[in-house]
Amino acid sequence: MRDYLPQDMIPRELLLANIKKTFRRWGFVPVETPAIEYTEVLMGSKYGTEAQKLIYHIVHDDGLALRYDLTVPLARLYALNERDLPTPFKRYQIQPVWRAERAQPRQGRFREFYQCDVDIVGTDSRLSDAEIVAMTVDILSEIGFDKFTLEVNHRGILLGMVEEAGFPAEEEISVCQSLDKLDKIGEDGVRKELGKKGFSDGPVTRLFELTKGDLESFATFENQRISRGYAEMMEFFRLIERFPGAIDHIRFSPTLARGLDYYTGIIFESKADDLPHIGSLTGGGRYDGLIGTFLGRDVPAIGTTIGLDRILVAAEEKGLISVKETFTDVLFINFGDDVLGEVIELSGALREKGISCEIYLEDKKLKKQFSYADKKDIPFVVTIGTDEIAQKIARLKRMKTGEQYDIPFEELADRVFEMK
Amino acid sequence: MRDYLPQDMIPRELLLANIKKTFRRWGFVPVETPAIEYTEVLMGSKYGTEAQKLIYHIVHDDGLALRYDLTVPLARLYALNERDLPTPFKRYQIQPVWRAERAQPRQGRFREFYQCDVDIVGTDSRLSDAEIVAMTVDILSEIGFDKFTLEVNHRGILLGMVEEAGFPAEEEISVCQSLDKLDKIGEDGVRKELGKKGFSDGPVTRLFELTKGDLESFATFENQRISRGYAEMMEFFRLIERFPGAIDHIRFSPTLARGLDYYTGIIFESKADDLPHIGSLTGGGRYDGLIGTFLGRDVPAIGTTIGLDRILVAAEEKGLISVKETFTDVLFINFGDDVLGEVIELSGALREKGISCEIYLEDKKLKKQFSYADKKDIPFVVTIGTDEIAQKIARLKRMKTGEQYDIPFEELADRVFEMK
Repeated sequence: MRDYLPQDMIPRELLLANIKKTFRRWGFVPVETPAIEYTEVLMGSKYGTEAQKLIYHIVHDDGLALRYDLTVPLARLYALNERDLPTPFKRYQIQPVWRAERAQPRQGRFREFYQCDVDIVGTDSRLSDAEIVAMTVDILSEIGFDKFTLEVNHRGILLGMVEEAGFPAEEEISVCQSLDKLDKIGEDGVRKELGKKGFSDGPVTRLFELTKGDLESFATFENQRISRGYAEMMEFFRLIERFPGAIDHIRFSPTLARGLDYYTGIIFESKADDLPHIGSLTGGGRYDGLIGTFLGRDVPAIGTTIGLDRILVAAEEKGLISVKETFTDVLFINFGDDVLGEVIELSGALREKGISCEIYLEDKKLKKQFSYADKKDIPFVVTIGTDEIAQKIARLKRMKTGEQYDIPFEELADRVFEMK
Repeated sequence: MRDYLPQDMIPRELLLANIKKTFRRWGFVPVETPAIEYTEVLMGSKYGTEAQKLIYHIVHDDGLALRYDLTVPLARLYALNERDLPTPFKRYQIQPVWRAERAQPRQGRFREFYQCDVDIVGTDSRLSDAEIVAMTVDILSEIGFDKFTLEVNHRGILLGMVEEAGFPAEEEISVCQSLDKLDKIGEDGVRKELGKKGFSDGPVTRLFELTKGDLESFATFENQRISRGYAEMMEFFRLIERFPGAIDHIRFSPTLARGLDYYTGIIFESKADDLPHIGSLTGGGRYDGLIGTFLGRDVPAIGTTIGLDRILVAAEEKGLISVKETFTDVLFINFGDDVLGEVIELSGALREKGISCEIYLEDKKLKKQFSYADKKDIPFVVTIGTDEIAQKIARLKRMKTGEQYDIPFEELADRVFEMK
């Protein structure tokens, strides 16, 4: 668990506002689901037995547990409300989830963390695949990233490739899990790991030959999964090319695997090219089987997670987000009762202009009041004593440079508005 | 528990954006605290024994429990981080809390609900009292309410008045609890309830005489609590008069009691004058003793809760917030592969102008696509078939009126931007 102090929350809020703006521009609407779900809903087979061990349970009401992610709650919400929801249903959702594992604050790993998910339920059109990917490019561009790559693959190509290489069907997931580490441990590392798992050189070598091909190299396989994957990826690329600015950031990567078992079609993951140490910023794919476990009938779906925490780290490293501790533009110094009435009225005038301001709340020493402005990084300080009241002039100081300006009361709001 | 569907979330998000804007304009910064707190933190005496029964407990980790409100977490956060926080510390916090009681969805009572709190920690200045009250007026005005009243009182006046009327000291809280119902059950009702509690007519009649006075009527008491309360209220009113537009909405009400035991100074509550059935929209007060229970040393604090749920109901009744199911401005009809490329490019141009738009994701019957726009209340639909592609003209329909416009591709973004 962690507290979000103002310096954590403000970049987070600015980022969220930014991301929401894009979500909205693409026609997504928000939903929220309760932190507490029926244990039954969370303890199905969806997460796998390992994940189930991490779920917090609650003892006041039998059968209630804490939300573990935002995908299962979406599936339950959709199954319960299908009649009232439009088809397709395009929603975003930004809420905390809980995992009962050891927190590693230095690695940015907490037992409570935010997920930010965006999904399209009710269509398996390639346009919906392309839209989720193009929107991800839009989100990362809007935040200010320029060099980033979205790797895309298709479960059919991945699994078909493993089949074609000659691995036994029951080992497909295990092989994919090793292949997924290619980025981190290289071909030698993956070969070593597959060797340790007891696979012989033949299929491993054939697999690596297959992974070196581009999308076109999968055109001629008779393998059903590969040919479906190839056809879907071709249509996906034909569409994605028309989304302004998207194609430059997209790369077909036949080794991309992604962890979760429930993906059934396209899968994708994005990284900042110049921040390889940060890992994937977003990731998702098509999962046409999950909602059926709640509804009794399959409903196609595709979505992506926007990795808020990693994006924050990456954006701060690139200087795209400034760490701020306050929204306040102006601090009014408090010289006590003789001047407070005028200062209150002036602060009201500034607020009416949309300027964020506060009056220091006690008549303390000047030094203490200025150090409050320093500590909170407030850019402007206004000093009004009895002399200034008599002349109806405010003394405005720009804290960064030390410059001072004497400004008539009635011009103060406009002048600050221009200067900030 | 409840799900927040888009029609619940969108007004909520717009409202929150609005409220946050005001918070920020007044120099408040956001924080968040985890949903899970140590049981020890929540099971102190702060909430009282009744409330403690409502706390959800969690069985995965010993000693963890769900957040019950936002005030105790603030006190803990402040006690833990005092050195790193500015004094005074002005924060807002908008997060769900949990109560293990019976949900009453029809009364808008859920076991998970949002609180929206704003507090100033570290000063007992009257200016901080006035600022919280003036900001509350600002928040309600900004949402669009015009007729509303903030009743203010002081715990010293309230308790001193009960003492002066001749009630025994140990019954003060019980008397205040009855008095607090004056609005709902009238003087006769309160008299009856106090009679049932075993109080004789003498003190009850004296109490009601005292409650009929204005603030000035408390000027001459020697009772220490009343004289402190009177002095603080006089200074509060002197300051609040200078905040533009605030005083018209404020009324001294010596019978205002508020439930929570921890208030120590000014208390306040707001209602919409023309929506008496909705109850209080905001409420709060000064609580100088609470943080001390965590820090071992008292730190003065004042704050208010902004009642999101009631404000939403009130704002909808007054027509200040429209129930929307989508942020989407434009739906592009999907006529399939022949036209999709051009449509995708046009949708990109609209998004670059900040227009929220979506392409219907499947090549379905026209009727079905239009009914999607209807269902989601999307104001504009753009139809582009092969003829339109040839002429590079988009057909724009305003759904509300049925008006149609033929618009050259390159002008579409600007025209929609003007019309929406």
